[in-house]
Amino acid sequence: MSLVPTFATPPGFLGLPPRAGSTGTTIAGIPLDLGTTNRAGTREGPAAIRRASRMLVDGAHPVTRVDPRALDLADIGDFRLALGDLAGSLALIEQQAAEHQHLVALGGEHGITLPLLRALAKRVGGPLALVHFDAHCDTWPESFGQRFSHGQPFFHAIEEGLLDPKRMIQIGIRSPVEPETMAWTLGKGVTILSAQAVHEMGPASVAAGIVDVVGPAPAYLSFDIDALDPAFAPGTGTPEIGGLASWQAQAILRRIGGLDFRGMDVVEVAPAYDHAEITALAAATIAWEYLCRAV
Amino acid sequence: MSLVPTFATPPGFLGLPPRAGSTGTTIAGIPLDLGTTNRAGTREGPAAIRRASRMLVDGAHPVTRVDPRALDLADIGDFRLALGDLAGSLALIEQQAAEHQHLVALGGEHGITLPLLRALAKRVGGPLALVHFDAHCDTWPESFGQRFSHGQPFFHAIEEGLLDPKRMIQIGIRSPVEPETMAWTLGKGVTILSAQAVHEMGPASVAAGIVDVVGPAPAYLSFDIDALDPAFAPGTGTPEIGGLASWQAQAILRRIGGLDFRGMDVVEVAPAYDHAEITALAAATIAWEYLCRAV
Amino acid sequence: MSLVPTFATPPGFLGLPPRAGSTGTTIAGIPLDLGTTNRAGTREGPAAIRRASRMLVDGAHPVTRVDPRALDLADIGDFRLALGDLAGSLALIEQQAAEHQHLVALGGEHGITLPLLRALAKRVGGPLALVHFDAHCDTWPESFGQRFSHGQPFFHAIEEGLLDPKRMIQIGIRSPVEPETMAWTLGKGVTILSAQAVHEMGPASVAAGIVDVVGPAPAYLSFDIDALDPAFAPGTGTPEIGGLASWQAQAILRRIGGLDFRGMDVVEVAPAYDHAEITALAAATIAWEYLCRAV
Amino acid sequence: MSLVPTFATPPGFLGLPPRAGSTGTTIAGIPLDLGTTNRAGTREGPAAIRRASRMLVDGAHPVTRVDPRALDLADIGDFRLALGDLAGSLALIEQQAAEHQHLVALGGEHGITLPLLRALAKRVGGPLALVHFDAHCDTWPESFGQRFSHGQPFFHAIEEGLLDPKRMIQIGIRSPVEPETMAWTLGKGVTILSAQAVHEMGPASVAAGIVDVVGPAPAYLSFDIDALDPAFAPGTGTPEIGGLASWQAQAILRRIGGLDFRGMDVVEVAPAYDHAEITALAAATIAWEYLCRAV
Amino acid sequence: MSLVPTFATPPGFLGLPPRAGSTGTTIAGIPLDLGTTNRAGTREGPAAIRRASRMLVDGAHPVTRVDPRALDLADIGDFRLALGDLAGSLALIEQQAAEHQHLVALGGEHGITLPLLRALAKRVGGPLALVHFDAHCDTWPESFGQRFSHGQPFFHAIEEGLLDPKRMIQIGIRSPVEPETMAWTLGKGVTILSAQAVHEMGPASVAAGIVDVVGPAPAYLSFDIDALDPAFAPGTGTPEIGGLASWQAQAILRRIGGLDFRGMDVVEVAPAYDHAEITALAAATIAWEYLCRAV
Amino acid sequence: MSLVPTFATPPGFLGLPPRAGSTGTTIAGIPLDLGTTNRAGTREGPAAIRRASRMLVDGAHPVTRVDPRALDLADIGDFRLALGDLAGSLALIEQQAAEHQHLVALGGEHGITLPLLRALAKRVGGPLALVHFDAHCDTWPESFGQRFSHGQPFFHAIEEGLLDPKRMIQIGIRSPVEPETMAWTLGKGVTILSAQAVHEMGPASVAAGIVDVVGPAPAYLSFDIDALDPAFAPGTGTPEIGGLASWQAQAILRRIGGLDFRGMDVVEVAPAYDHAEITALAAATIAWEYLCRAV
Repeated sequence: MSLVPTFATPPGFLGLPPRAGSTGTTIAGIPLDLGTTNRAGTREGPAAIRRASRMLVDGAHPVTRVDPRALDLADIGDFRLALGDLAGSLALIEQQAAEHQHLVALGGEHGITLPLLRALAKRVGGPLALVHFDAHCDTWPESFGQRFSHGQPFFHAIEEGLLDPKRMIQIGIRSPVEPETMAWTLGKGVTILSAQAVHEMGPASVAAGIVDVVGPAPAYLSFDIDALDPAFAPGTGTPEIGGLASWQAQAILRRIGGLDFRGMDVVEVAPAYDHAEITALAAATIAWEYLCRAV
Repeated sequence: MSLVPTFATPPGFLGLPPRAGSTGTTIAGIPLDLGTTNRAGTREGPAAIRRASRMLVDGAHPVTRVDPRALDLADIGDFRLALGDLAGSLALIEQQAAEHQHLVALGGEHGITLPLLRALAKRVGGPLALVHFDAHCDTWPESFGQRFSHGQPFFHAIEEGLLDPKRMIQIGIRSPVEPETMAWTLGKGVTILSAQAVHEMGPASVAAGIVDVVGPAPAYLSFDIDALDPAFAPGTGTPEIGGLASWQAQAILRRIGGLDFRGMDVVEVAPAYDHAEITALAAATIAWEYLCRAV
Repeated sequence: MSLVPTFATPPGFLGLPPRAGSTGTTIAGIPLDLGTTNRAGTREGPAAIRRASRMLVDGAHPVTRVDPRALDLADIGDFRLALGDLAGSLALIEQQAAEHQHLVALGGEHGITLPLLRALAKRVGGPLALVHFDAHCDTWPESFGQRFSHGQPFFHAIEEGLLDPKRMIQIGIRSPVEPETMAWTLGKGVTILSAQAVHEMGPASVAAGIVDVVGPAPAYLSFDIDALDPAFAPGTGTPEIGGLASWQAQAILRRIGGLDFRGMDVVEVAPAYDHAEITALAAATIAWEYLCRAV
Repeated sequence: MSLVPTFATPPGFLGLPPRAGSTGTTIAGIPLDLGTTNRAGTREGPAAIRRASRMLVDGAHPVTRVDPRALDLADIGDFRLALGDLAGSLALIEQQAAEHQHLVALGGEHGITLPLLRALAKRVGGPLALVHFDAHCDTWPESFGQRFSHGQPFFHAIEEGLLDPKRMIQIGIRSPVEPETMAWTLGKGVTILSAQAVHEMGPASVAAGIVDVVGPAPAYLSFDIDALDPAFAPGTGTPEIGGLASWQAQAILRRIGGLDFRGMDVVEVAPAYDHAEITALAAATIAWEYLCRAV
Repeated sequence: MSLVPTFATPPGFLGLPPRAGSTGTTIAGIPLDLGTTNRAGTREGPAAIRRASRMLVDGAHPVTRVDPRALDLADIGDFRLALGDLAGSLALIEQQAAEHQHLVALGGEHGITLPLLRALAKRVGGPLALVHFDAHCDTWPESFGQRFSHGQPFFHAIEEGLLDPKRMIQIGIRSPVEPETMAWTLGKGVTILSAQAVHEMGPASVAAGIVDVVGPAPAYLSFDIDALDPAFAPGTGTPEIGGLASWQAQAILRRIGGLDFRGMDVVEVAPAYDHAEITALAAATIAWEYLCRAV
Repeated sequence: MSLVPTFATPPGFLGLPPRAGSTGTTIAGIPLDLGTTNRAGTREGPAAIRRASRMLVDGAHPVTRVDPRALDLADIGDFRLALGDLAGSLALIEQQAAEHQHLVALGGEHGITLPLLRALAKRVGGPLALVHFDAHCDTWPESFGQRFSHGQPFFHAIEEGLLDPKRMIQIGIRSPVEPETMAWTLGKGVTILSAQAVHEMGPASVAAGIVDVVGPAPAYLSFDIDALDPAFAPGTGTPEIGGLASWQAQAILRRIGGLDFRGMDVVEVAPAYDHAEITALAAATIAWEYLCRAV
């Protein structure tokens, strides 16, 4: 009989006590926001996601029956960063990521995915497949003159051979885009499912499409919270209307648990623009869906 | 020709003047929040729901054509409660509920449903059927050591014989849960429709399922506003993503008006976490759908 | 290589510099809110919509491939109004609207549509067809004694012969309504698609219905942001739950670009009730969908 | 022993039940906002002030020892207004004000003071003295072409002989102003104490100055909440920094209770811009200071 | 050279790592809110105060030169509570408080002070002196029928002999109050300084008065955040205007560091009503002023 | 007779139309936030300050009688920056600043002051005197490893000989600080007035002290909005309680207009944390006080 109500849950992700690492899955916050192009503040994301995760502490996942309390999880706190130094921060992230077997990263902006993929591709020994939820393709070669903003991670990851673009699928895409950027991405072999397609196909078809593209390859999940509609995730920096409902994302994720995932991130939560923690809770729940997936 | 614009609507539910009771339907606020397990503040729910209901004053329901101004309705204000005393408050609620023929209760937290059902089962002379919208099953035997928190009303109502669990259906369920709690609930004969099931079945099938389960028995409607997704109802204490859109709840309710309802509540509105009154308006509209149902 | 990040986009719509007019499409703000019946503040709408439009500056529409930077667009700023004088403001709006070939108006309340239609019907030389997204039919003959509030524009527009009611379709309707108002509207030949119908039909059927009703006639698009659900558009004065998701509105608009549109407005954004600019962004995106429509 | 906690206080001012009038003091809301020049929404003021007044229900004033529960007070609800019609609304306000002996008006915008003074000057049979707290002198002859906006009440009141400008004092003035407007006002004999003067003189000197100016004449108190600094009253439409702290206003009011006050208003509360009810509570407390003044 | 920017400070108070206790000073959260009479939510107080304290981590106090990093401090997390059970929670608090030498408690509501004083008076072996900042005297014998709400702690503490009322001073008092309650309090010998007195006396005089009253007795500091004006501390449940500026509280505290303090609490932070963490930061800073006092 | 109400003021500072420069005073936004150490978002500062400045458009300064409409002012929009590149942005700022005779910069974070001083010292041909309002001394040699964050501008400006530290005064200082940083600053000859000193001395003495320190030297004004208390300026990244009231800042500025000012900045407005524009209005008003100073 516990005497610690939900509202008094300790501040680690899912109430976990601080720990230096895990041979299972390691959770880390990466509070970077130097490369954001519109609204700022993803530096506050990890703390907000942890706080919101208290809703998920008690009990097992209602569908998969996985109980996160039975998993080997460690929340190691936040990665060190170089204040005001984007290149330095990306290097620090890669270096710290290399220390962990299986990482669930709580962003921070989407630029963190590039060093995470660098470390993971090295560990895996070859390119990864990618399941990428986002409103934006993030394959621009530069944004406003910056080559490592939150709009470039997948351009570089493809160019650097960290990802196999033919095993890469983007879900929820809907922002304005330069036609040449779209052409480059499709030309590399990336599969793109627009948000409108997701709405009109339904989650079962989307999930089948993902499984088709990814296949048995070692895979990574990168979930930009702006894949969700601003109604479901207002607390983000580059919102686009017309996005996914959170139930759609969950219904898709619950059908792709059998993929060979080696890590994930959930990024772009900007708490200053959130309301009643709904965006942070969405991000926490996405990570929980991943942790509790039926393999 | 009225000179009282919407923004100046008097503060009673649907602008009703204060009245001590009704031989028709009685509306009462029950501002309890002592048994909440996460975010607080449902004590502010009744006032917020009344204020939001001004949007529904002028005109008839667009589908059922019922005009609430033609009904025998009284808003008696808020029930008396015992400050800081959960057991005392539950006893006071039961005692006051017993005075009314047909009650529409504006919560307040979900713990109020237990004394409301106690009073109503006594009046009806036997167990009730239940249509229960919620993110949580609320059949835990205790929460953090407390046996009468907002997570227990239906555990006790079944144990006390106030409800017939075989005529009880839960819609929108999606929180983490102990497997034994789920097993107990299903073992009693309760029907559970998860939120994901609602999304994938559509409202017409859900409504047909409800009618099947409830049948001709005297029935009660308990609507926890967290059945809705946090996008539609951020102003609540224990949000879970992946919930219903408000249109889905309405589309279901509009198809089950023929059930033999003897009362209802709408609970768990926590205005401090609401934005632009959208949660309070959702709750007010759910009550209005009930009042204007096509019987 | 630009050095102006998204957050520093100049304040015109889509970052446009101030200009006095255009032979193509002219964008104008009309910050009226004198005729609102519930929450106030649509006077702040145009500035908020412009600011939110910065998300849409870079790149082409992802579906139609139209790039707004290639269009002949001018943002002329806000129309002059008569402070505290509803009749005077309506006259000023009509007079200023008459100066522009093709107008995209950023409201402001829905009362602005009447003088816009007066000017446009005169220019076109006859009644217009209308595609009207809204939670309310706005064909009341008066509201609380006022004949020119935001609840009357289409009553007068039909009575004055500015619209051909048989080529007029309303999408998203769901508010309480006097049965006689509904009867009058239907009696004139207006087609009404309730929000629930939109949800259950799907956008392709809705779009087909619109094309059927409007046909080849010169048409106007009036988009009241409260057509969207309050989850998607909290920043408005007369919200009603059960409304459209923003993706539904987009999916409909993308299928009716072939209509002979002569102008549009997006109205009823009340920024004081918005959160994280989501309502303003929805309105900006609706205007952008219109500008980037595949003709 | 009460069982109605503060949070369940009924919605009348100080929890008063609805009543049609009083031979003592009558409280009325006047939800006008048609003549506001910047941010909108004072229409929501009366309801917010009433709700906030629940903090003042239990007990006597700590300094004057007056217990408002012992006074003959009636809250008659809100005055009727003409929607969207400024002139019509002003006429309605004057007509309704004439029915009451001693009125405490909860605004609404400052334009309501003109018809209130018209009614009161008629009742008193001559011009009144005025104690006027405000950031703005409100003696502009017109604002943006409108002669009856919230910037004109005292221009007209002086011109119509409703006020004796030599017995009129303005406290807290600090906005930009046309030099000719300032010259006109001073030329009429009005005494102006800038906010900076209030800060540097201290409340005792200010109160002495007020008593000097007003003397034994029948007097009116008009309190624009923007007299307070935006830190203390963010929920208003035309804020100016550098304003009074709320304690300063209270310390002044507590020293001028002996004046022969015949009525008062507290205006310009715009709840959409308030936070945590602090502006509404400030307005409610100012009215309570007036009601509980030591005469 | 640290690579952990302020925004990534770990979540303990002043960034302290979790620890089970300290022979120096122990910091504990006590997230109680069952006995609040108006707005709810002090259960969220401790987490918010800890998060806000990150502004105070780096460097020494600018006046006293005390560096909190050099002190023997432990943050033990939150006390266990009995959900929904006020009496049970008070008993649990007393029991846990008894385990610590010198406690700084982060509330939670003011009702926690009674069990804290019970434990401390037992440890000290006699009644304590009290320095009490508050808008309310909190010596009511009951509130709405409840004898242990947040309005009673000092009534019971005096009645139980935990405090020496002649060595007890209340600063900032300004709420409405029953004259008999005020008379009882003064009759016991308590010194009361109203908020208005504080404003007009200045902090040096107030501090001298405190030192006079308390003398060399073992003393306790109880700081209700509503002693501050709602402008400085909106995030609280029972705000009263006219309160202290935060600088005044600091200027007083900095002059009374020489008292023989044995513990303190800062209570009544309700984060749901806070804005931009300003209330939480005020509470964190008050605790920091205490920890860094010049003894 | 204008028909453009305050709420429709065009978006330039004080409603100014876009212009490329001025031989008088040039206003520029500098939306940098890469070097902030706590909460992010000063990139949104310039747009928010401009929008808030609409309150100051009509009329002359009430004390100095200067009318900003009579000045030679240009608002050139925002400086170009290098996205995600702190060093590159500082270089761009210096380069653009060098083009203007007399600059009023709207931040952006405090790091912008260093390149502004570099450009101005070069133009003036020697070190400047400095009037510096702030909660923080900003003379740290580095922050978390970053040598050009918003905590370093005055360290470098002194080291680079851009400022004469003996003619430099800091007003409002109150944050925790390393004793060695304080010692270095004082050792250079800088005068520091803590916030508590300002409160206890009064603005006239403070102003006299400033005039004494600065003397006839060419001077610069740098106003960090966190010099104000968070009650007056919540919208900032590194708030500290106990700060100045906005009237105090104004009362000081109005007494030092005779100094030989050659430029100014107002920095650290982070609109995502603002409420009802009060911080942005404070910043706009500080710039207006500067522009309207009595020379």
